[in-house]
Amino acid sequence: HLIYSYLIHTILSLLVLLSQGILERLDAGEVVIGDGGFVFALEKRGYVKAGPWTPEAAAEHPEAVRQLHREFLRAGANVMQTFTFYASDDKLENRGNKLTFTGVQINEAACDLAHEVANEGDALVAGGVSQTPSYLSCKSEADVKAIFKKQLDVFIKKNVDFLIAEYFEHVEEAVWAVEVLKETGKPVAASLCIGPQGDMHGVSAGECAVRLVKAGAQIVGINCHFDPMTCVKTVKLMKEGVEKAGLKAHYMVQPLAYHTPDCSCQGFIDLPEFPFGLEPRILTRWDMQKYAREAYNAGIHFIGGCCGFEPYHIRAVAEELAPERGFLPPASEKHGNWGAGLEMHTKPWVRARARRDYWQNLKPASGRPLCPSLSTPDGWGVTKGHSDLLQQKEATTQDQLKQLFDRRSEIKVTGSEPEVVMGSKVSSKMAAPTARVIQAVRPHAPLIKFPKRQDLPKPN
Amino acid sequence: HLIYSYLIHTILSLLVLLSQGILERLDAGEVVIGDGGFVFALEKRGYVKAGPWTPEAAAEHPEAVRQLHREFLRAGANVMQTFTFYASDDKLENRGNKLTFTGVQINEAACDLAHEVANEGDALVAGGVSQTPSYLSCKSEADVKAIFKKQLDVFIKKNVDFLIAEYFEHVEEAVWAVEVLKETGKPVAASLCIGPQGDMHGVSAGECAVRLVKAGAQIVGINCHFDPMTCVKTVKLMKEGVEKAGLKAHYMVQPLAYHTPDCSCQGFIDLPEFPFGLEPRILTRWDMQKYAREAYNAGIHFIGGCCGFEPYHIRAVAEELAPERGFLPPASEKHGNWGAGLEMHTKPWVRARARRDYWQNLKPASGRPLCPSLSTPDGWGVTKGHSDLLQQKEATTQDQLKQLFDRRSEIKVTGSEPEVVMGSKVSSKMAAPTARVIQAVRPHAPLIKFPKRQDLPKPN
Amino acid sequence: HLIYSYLIHTILSLLVLLSQGILERLDAGEVVIGDGGFVFALEKRGYVKAGPWTPEAAAEHPEAVRQLHREFLRAGANVMQTFTFYASDDKLENRGNKLTFTGVQINEAACDLAHEVANEGDALVAGGVSQTPSYLSCKSEADVKAIFKKQLDVFIKKNVDFLIAEYFEHVEEAVWAVEVLKETGKPVAASLCIGPQGDMHGVSAGECAVRLVKAGAQIVGINCHFDPMTCVKTVKLMKEGVEKAGLKAHYMVQPLAYHTPDCSCQGFIDLPEFPFGLEPRILTRWDMQKYAREAYNAGIHFIGGCCGFEPYHIRAVAEELAPERGFLPPASEKHGNWGAGLEMHTKPWVRARARRDYWQNLKPASGRPLCPSLSTPDGWGVTKGHSDLLQQKEATTQDQLKQLFDRRSEIKVTGSEPEVVMGSKVSSKMAAPTARVIQAVRPHAPLIKFPKRQDLPKPN
Amino acid sequence: HLIYSYLIHTILSLLVLLSQGILERLDAGEVVIGDGGFVFALEKRGYVKAGPWTPEAAAEHPEAVRQLHREFLRAGANVMQTFTFYASDDKLENRGNKLTFTGVQINEAACDLAHEVANEGDALVAGGVSQTPSYLSCKSEADVKAIFKKQLDVFIKKNVDFLIAEYFEHVEEAVWAVEVLKETGKPVAASLCIGPQGDMHGVSAGECAVRLVKAGAQIVGINCHFDPMTCVKTVKLMKEGVEKAGLKAHYMVQPLAYHTPDCSCQGFIDLPEFPFGLEPRILTRWDMQKYAREAYNAGIHFIGGCCGFEPYHIRAVAEELAPERGFLPPASEKHGNWGAGLEMHTKPWVRARARRDYWQNLKPASGRPLCPSLSTPDGWGVTKGHSDLLQQKEATTQDQLKQLFDRRSEIKVTGSEPEVVMGSKVSSKMAAPTARVIQAVRPHAPLIKFPKRQDLPKPN
Repeated sequence: HLIYSYLIHTILSLLVLLSQGILERLDAGEVVIGDGGFVFALEKRGYVKAGPWTPEAAAEHPEAVRQLHREFLRAGANVMQTFTFYASDDKLENRGNKLTFTGVQINEAACDLAHEVANEGDALVAGGVSQTPSYLSCKSEADVKAIFKKQLDVFIKKNVDFLIAEYFEHVEEAVWAVEVLKETGKPVAASLCIGPQGDMHGVSAGECAVRLVKAGAQIVGINCHFDPMTCVKTVKLMKEGVEKAGLKAHYMVQPLAYHTPDCSCQGFIDLPEFPFGLEPRILTRWDMQKYAREAYNAGIHFIGGCCGFEPYHIRAVAEELAPERGFLPPASEKHGNWGAGLEMHTKPWVRARARRDYWQNLKPASGRPLCPSLSTPDGWGVTKGHSDLLQQKEATTQDQLKQLFDRRSEIKVTGSEPEVVMGSKVSSKMAAPTARVIQAVRPHAPLIKFPKRQDLPKPN
Repeated sequence: HLIYSYLIHTILSLLVLLSQGILERLDAGEVVIGDGGFVFALEKRGYVKAGPWTPEAAAEHPEAVRQLHREFLRAGANVMQTFTFYASDDKLENRGNKLTFTGVQINEAACDLAHEVANEGDALVAGGVSQTPSYLSCKSEADVKAIFKKQLDVFIKKNVDFLIAEYFEHVEEAVWAVEVLKETGKPVAASLCIGPQGDMHGVSAGECAVRLVKAGAQIVGINCHFDPMTCVKTVKLMKEGVEKAGLKAHYMVQPLAYHTPDCSCQGFIDLPEFPFGLEPRILTRWDMQKYAREAYNAGIHFIGGCCGFEPYHIRAVAEELAPERGFLPPASEKHGNWGAGLEMHTKPWVRARARRDYWQNLKPASGRPLCPSLSTPDGWGVTKGHSDLLQQKEATTQDQLKQLFDRRSEIKVTGSEPEVVMGSKVSSKMAAPTARVIQAVRPHAPLIKFPKRQDLPKPN
Repeated sequence: HLIYSYLIHTILSLLVLLSQGILERLDAGEVVIGDGGFVFALEKRGYVKAGPWTPEAAAEHPEAVRQLHREFLRAGANVMQTFTFYASDDKLENRGNKLTFTGVQINEAACDLAHEVANEGDALVAGGVSQTPSYLSCKSEADVKAIFKKQLDVFIKKNVDFLIAEYFEHVEEAVWAVEVLKETGKPVAASLCIGPQGDMHGVSAGECAVRLVKAGAQIVGINCHFDPMTCVKTVKLMKEGVEKAGLKAHYMVQPLAYHTPDCSCQGFIDLPEFPFGLEPRILTRWDMQKYAREAYNAGIHFIGGCCGFEPYHIRAVAEELAPERGFLPPASEKHGNWGAGLEMHTKPWVRARARRDYWQNLKPASGRPLCPSLSTPDGWGVTKGHSDLLQQKEATTQDQLKQLFDRRSEIKVTGSEPEVVMGSKVSSKMAAPTARVIQAVRPHAPLIKFPKRQDLPKPN
Repeated sequence: HLIYSYLIHTILSLLVLLSQGILERLDAGEVVIGDGGFVFALEKRGYVKAGPWTPEAAAEHPEAVRQLHREFLRAGANVMQTFTFYASDDKLENRGNKLTFTGVQINEAACDLAHEVANEGDALVAGGVSQTPSYLSCKSEADVKAIFKKQLDVFIKKNVDFLIAEYFEHVEEAVWAVEVLKETGKPVAASLCIGPQGDMHGVSAGECAVRLVKAGAQIVGINCHFDPMTCVKTVKLMKEGVEKAGLKAHYMVQPLAYHTPDCSCQGFIDLPEFPFGLEPRILTRWDMQKYAREAYNAGIHFIGGCCGFEPYHIRAVAEELAPERGFLPPASEKHGNWGAGLEMHTKPWVRARARRDYWQNLKPASGRPLCPSLSTPDGWGVTKGHSDLLQQKEATTQDQLKQLFDRRSEIKVTGSEPEVVMGSKVSSKMAAPTARVIQAVRPHAPLIKFPKRQDLPKPN
């Protein structure tokens, strides 16, 4: 009888757990693991086009999107984000992007896929909106909100579990998004793609977080644009801001899977390697375990990934936090903890690598001796409000391209070198806004007019 | 009437094309594009365990394997290799690997999946066998051949289009495999995982190729273990050997997608980063285009990939060789040639990267300033015939592991540094066998007994 | 007659110039070029011992010291600093350093050599004092001042042109030094070895400068410990501080000739390469030209060098500022501007390098593919006030050494990784104090107690 | 009485030692330590012009040359080479080089300085000749020999102890030099500046050595152009050649102090960093100790240095071989063995570096994260016999320079990338001639004519 009643109790607990929403989970102190970014992963698989980065694959090739959802689920993700990144109508039609599916069709297909896979496990479905070309092109608040509203209608119809406004470079636009999403009554998370220096208009990370919480977001944080450690640092700054303002929130982080120590305020977009030469920067699974621990220690409990994350990166997060969560993800069946699977390797010197301290201390070589370890980011320093960022429906013309090619060479020549600062941990109080104001063409010492040597007075 | 008869003619030609086998295609001078390696790609997706590297996913998770086949097909692959790598019974049961499916079940499932996807496009199905633990453990020729025969029975039953004996470190075992495969009458390809120095017993690449052709292989070449340029170099040596011997063959190459300039004769297995820290070495799509061109120029017409290849890597091969093939692969719908898709990017400085010379000249940074660019490979130098390589069914014990851990530290301490040689192109005639003979523990100058300074006669 | 009167005029002008002191020169807007550091240069030549770094060579091997003075003079230096670095009695006798010459003998010999060579050209003699072991060992202000006074007595007797208090990590001690030096009525320069984060007790660079000016220093700035660009940045912060306080001063900078982007607040002392593995960090002459321009543009007019500078580095400074100074240094007879001397090279492809844009854009390779590009500095974080820094006359015992060796391993293991921040130019207003407070053992997340995998609930 | 007789014995032994010539020393198994290169060291000090690289400083600034001799003597050198590198009349007058001293004056002054310093210690004086512009310009054997003869006349008059023909890229010219030098009856050493691939006309290192020994050289070896380990490897090949031919010789090595793993057959001249950006490649003292041991173990007993060597590098050689030699050099008074001097450092974490294993295992960072670790050498591939190498007395004209600048850009664009080969030790038997034949413009695959994408048949 005891055993029987125990079993019933366990089953009921599990049912309760399964029916819990994102806020209940976070309130209970649970770790919620996000999925990884879809556009980069599916670009490598052949279903997303780099450049427009639009998610029409949800309608065009559902089997590919479904499979990626499933892999993240197996890797330990608790959240299936609808594959609706950049699925606003103004983005789907930007700069000559021509699609056979409408925005509504794509958003609906994405919701169906997320639900289908979420039901295969213990995951919630999150409907997501992201920044719009309309905002960059200086459209009105009403216009921009109307765009979010259109996607939101689909999410409501498809009854997603909660909503995420993510990938915003300007907190102003993110606040507008939160205001729209809040109308539904569903939990709202808001996630900016900014670094420790703050948003593209110079609003500090702490202040950004305060504005988002005041607008109604229950979860705030960072996604994309920077590497995991930088994103965790930025969320810490947000947390400090929220706490200093006497407010309360949950925190989330979904960084890149690329090392980006050399980024300036706009993140990896500015790196010369973006988006087709980022391979040498991809994080290992061990880097990911370090990240997961650091995020957890910082009080961030919604921990996931963005561009560059493959399912094994999410698995590494789940494995690192297995002690806190109490279980390993299904995909760990196919992964020995800290390299333990190598015990089964045929070669003895590879079996000798089946241990934690080996992998934890490894400094992996790039195999590229002709390449540097850091890059000088492009720094055009333009953002919303600058005419360069006006978007257009028509394809970029050859003439427009030529102007850009020429302009780039020019900036490269006159641009000054970035500076590298490396040192002991900076406490968040001391972290300073850097590079907040950047000229469209970076200021540079006037070109030195060096006199011809023969004109100079000669030494004796 | 003319149009009508033209249409019929075209359709008939296509039917002929579709019914052509691997040898007809190669004889006609066609480029045949292989797929990428499955074990590494599926390990990242959560379906293969690094260590045993066995392909039970074909039976366990067919949807994942099917999806990967499909992505390679879309990327341009003409060959669907059955996911039967390491699917010999002695490997499936090695060192404590416990599986719920039998070898026959796995091999059959793999054949079904390859056929299913091949039929979605213009691809051939190749049944593959690879090197066995039995050979490494010094089993007899008959024993080893019996193992190949068992897999072959499935391939015949499932009627694959041709056969590949791949991933052999010792030409002797590859010859045995070819002899078994030849009995079926199907075309046979043979591919070693050796570098320009030759096989693990010191047989030169040219001589290896000659033995394989004499054993009956119609296609010979290299797969795995080294980066693309090194593999192409090795196939060139094989071609020279075959031609010098007055023989004829077709050539294939299916390299790693990792830069491995620092490997010694056993390839990337010896690199300290293998298998969980290889990320910084992953080739970009532009590296792949260079590889495809180089392979084609070397007279190699069966061009594919192995470990580390993702679908977009194969797509890059197909895009580079599109002029020769006359068409682009389906996945190029989602890829602008040489970065052309970036014309649609919202940021002007990213649109400024939409051109060939930008990507062709980029030297991508690692983002890892604390890491070196090259590694010192492990060099235990043991191979078949050495007791260290005897395999066992039982899991490796903790005691066995401890011995390995200790031994590694010892070798590291006494090991001498590798040498880097870099220079202008080496013509194949001049390429020399290096490092053919390696001691189990590398020879080292006796530890210098430096006298205490106070014991030395003092100057002045 | 005209020519004759012109000649007389020129000679008189030169005589006026030659009789001008350091302040007259700086007041007139002249560029004053310092020399390079003597201890590192003479260590390489075999006359100074790394560890104690004391200048007994002035008395022991005057020919070597004289020759180095002469080389810096030829390279363009206007200032001959007496080779009296670390020539205070408490340093000459520290930790078992045994010398045959007294402090007075060494200081006197150094003054004689500086005067002798200064008279061969247009240079001033500067007597220099530097930080003392007594201060680090928490001796009283009176004790420390008495030590400076003893060196000063020699400088007065030998009638140097002006005085420099240099290489101070703590502004408090530097202020004491300035107070002593001021008593003589000679011009006083004060130079700290701190970075943008401020001194070792957390006083900001701006505040340090204000205190030094208030104590009576007419010239303030930075020497040693960081690379040129970092030092220029720090002097800019000092200048801002001085100007904000409504004070006036001249500025000086004498940085390292080593790239140190990875340093924390104590500079290159903490780098693992200090002092015997710094070679790969040595600046090229082109780096030096960039530095000289940057310093000049920042309003710094006393520009020299410290450890790592060789005569050709000073020559590069003089060549970059030749337009401002109106002449080239004597040693430029043996140096073509921007590589022009290569026009005389026998090999055509080397002659093809005889141009400015070649050298200005070159990114020189390290030739060390097994080495990283940045290091993790040691971060014991102890400074004056910590018992670890008490000095002793006796040699360090083997037991004391063993404790240090063990302690280092311990710190390395628990230490967290440094962070790299790289981005667009930070305006000085935004630069933040980083790493001001460092624990003796850096804080670290408690070691993760990872449960044994078999104890975890298994996923189905 | 016993002590007295012991003293006399010791003094006599020392006298015998001092009177011994180079061959007696080598025959007795002694280690003979050479000095370092003068042109690079004096260029940094301001007395030699990079480009012509001529040694007029011997006459112009004897104090600087004397001091450098003295520093190498103190560092442990047994040989003072006359500073007569490139002091042949045809080189002194090449390409607009205008000097106030005649060739005879320079050669005589150099001999006097070498003698003067050699007498301060236990060193021999070696008169040196090197390759001539006349040979490169295809002058006759008689013409070239006449040039050597002119320098030799000075050496005989000044009675040097032995002769060195060094820095020859073509063994043919070196043989001519040896034939001239042999006429004097003095011992002759011959040293080529070639790598393991052999001389610039493709003669193997072994064959070069045989020809030199047959011409009468008693000591043969390598100097300049490559890093220490590469030079030792080449001398090993020479030794094998000599022994295989049944001949006998002593061996010498005087390499660069720069890491050059990326060089092709002409060595560091081809590196883009030559000569003004080589700093990051400078060897540490610990690299030098490794080199000295390796050279000694290879049976090379005349061990010195060439370009890049500073006195402390020679001291490191002398310290490593102190057990074999039985004494430390005078300059070791100012150097603790394996960092022992750091025991006297004020900072505890620097004292923690006072031990051999610290320095032996350090992988020093470059401090240059924007720079690669290897370079692509220039590869014009022209040598004696090619019109590009004809020399001229007149200065290079602007027009001639422009042609070179243009040509370089052209070669860079069409040139293929070098290849890196890195692996286990190559035994000398296996070392292969690489890159022996290089086209003036490297062969390259014809530029791929990629069809416009719109012209290609579209998939689906």
